[in-house]
Amino acid sequence: MSGDSAKPRDGAQAVHRTLALLHCFGDSPQDLSASDLARRTDLPLSTTHRLLRAMTATGFLEQDPDTARYGLGPTMAELGRAAYHRRGLHRAEPELAALSQRTGVTADLAVRVGARAVILVGSSLANDHGRALRRPLHSTALGKVLLAWSDAADREIGTPLTPQTDRTITDPRALGEELNRVRAAGYALNDGESASGVRTVAVPVLDADDHARFALALRSSPEVITGERLGWFAEQAAACATALEVVLLPPNRRRTGPRPVIALP
Amino acid sequence: MSGDSAKPRDGAQAVHRTLALLHCFGDSPQDLSASDLARRTDLPLSTTHRLLRAMTATGFLEQDPDTARYGLGPTMAELGRAAYHRRGLHRAEPELAALSQRTGVTADLAVRVGARAVILVGSSLANDHGRALRRPLHSTALGKVLLAWSDAADREIGTPLTPQTDRTITDPRALGEELNRVRAAGYALNDGESASGVRTVAVPVLDADDHARFALALRSSPEVITGERLGWFAEQAAACATALEVVLLPPNRRRTGPRPVIALP
Repeated sequence: MSGDSAKPRDGAQAVHRTLALLHCFGDSPQDLSASDLARRTDLPLSTTHRLLRAMTATGFLEQDPDTARYGLGPTMAELGRAAYHRRGLHRAEPELAALSQRTGVTADLAVRVGARAVILVGSSLANDHGRALRRPLHSTALGKVLLAWSDAADREIGTPLTPQTDRTITDPRALGEELNRVRAAGYALNDGESASGVRTVAVPVLDADDHARFALALRSSPEVITGERLGWFAEQAAACATALEVVLLPPNRRRTGPRPVIALP
Repeated sequence: MSGDSAKPRDGAQAVHRTLALLHCFGDSPQDLSASDLARRTDLPLSTTHRLLRAMTATGFLEQDPDTARYGLGPTMAELGRAAYHRRGLHRAEPELAALSQRTGVTADLAVRVGARAVILVGSSLANDHGRALRRPLHSTALGKVLLAWSDAADREIGTPLTPQTDRTITDPRALGEELNRVRAAGYALNDGESASGVRTVAVPVLDADDHARFALALRSSPEVITGERLGWFAEQAAACATALEVVLLPPNRRRTGPRPVIALP
């Protein structure tokens, strides 16, 4: 928000504020009060109230009559469903379910939005909390894949590389080397860099420009995704990613070259 | 949009514009160009471009690099999924699927947003087009249910009652009488009022205040939903609506009185 304060009040400011308010609900599993929202977006309470009124009137938000707290409204459910179906993501669901069943571990599909990997389909969403899943790029296998197969300029994520565990890569140069390794190996590994005891293998869903349009991850513990079985998990994920390129990309946007070969260390 | 033009430029205008732009995608199954969007929202092209830039930067919209057209972005898919799950709508899916299978006809669940009934779950969404389904209130069984079980003030929908077929109720007084009949009968009927040859029976999902939080409809032709079988279809829908009250409403918001008895003419 603060980045906008120098700009003229040309409407873009209000758009960013509206979107910032909506985003609060992506990060929070429960309804929020007007003062919660003002605090999280760093907006004056009066401005927040004014924006919330407009957003409630159009169904983007909904106010609980008992608690006066706000939640995402029916318009968001409607448009969100349209966005989900129009991107063909419902067609990815059975592919991910089959992959998860075949491997016995969690399978997730994410897309990059700004400086986050956002999980849109997969086992992590199947549970009941309905919490949106936004993950940092630098400390996740999903994020490393999205960065490794992107333009050089897009590799610059600009934010400080916040440590999640003592294994998180926090040095930008070390991250650059890691991304080169990922690209050469054909897969990314997150070995306790987000949470200790969690190991994740990810591969790209590539488009015609050799960009990762999505990242596909298998997640479990190091006892399940052992060093010996790492290659097998990566191959399983890569086979599913190839299917997803067909399911999610139109024919004219699909990769024509060979898939990256999984190269174990 | 025009209703805003007299208001001071206090941010609410930009919010309404942003939401109007997003809404264009709920009504259109395909991507839209900046000039399409300017025309549909009645905004100057320069303003539209400025808002589209802000909306694309945050992932609410996405621009196709080949066609330069806009579509709903990953943030909408993410937040929409959060809204859908947090409202428990995924728990309604198996109930509606079972109802559709038991009756052999289309089963849909809608919520009211402004002057529309918006289908959020059901057979009409299961097909592949991903188009959002917004229906008028006065010419649909879903809409009649949402109006009949609401506060008197909410029955005033204010818009002209546009005819869809020669059977559509277009006189506000006749609609008022129809809503009283619907409430007394415990169900609503749309008998060729939206499209000829289509007959729909709908019942309310009621809350503790006796308001229809959702409307549940069964849709087919008059040859399937015959006069003789109407009662059976309405009873099947009502049984499912009772289950949905449990699935979709927290215990303290649930109806305590008896369910409306289905009274055939």
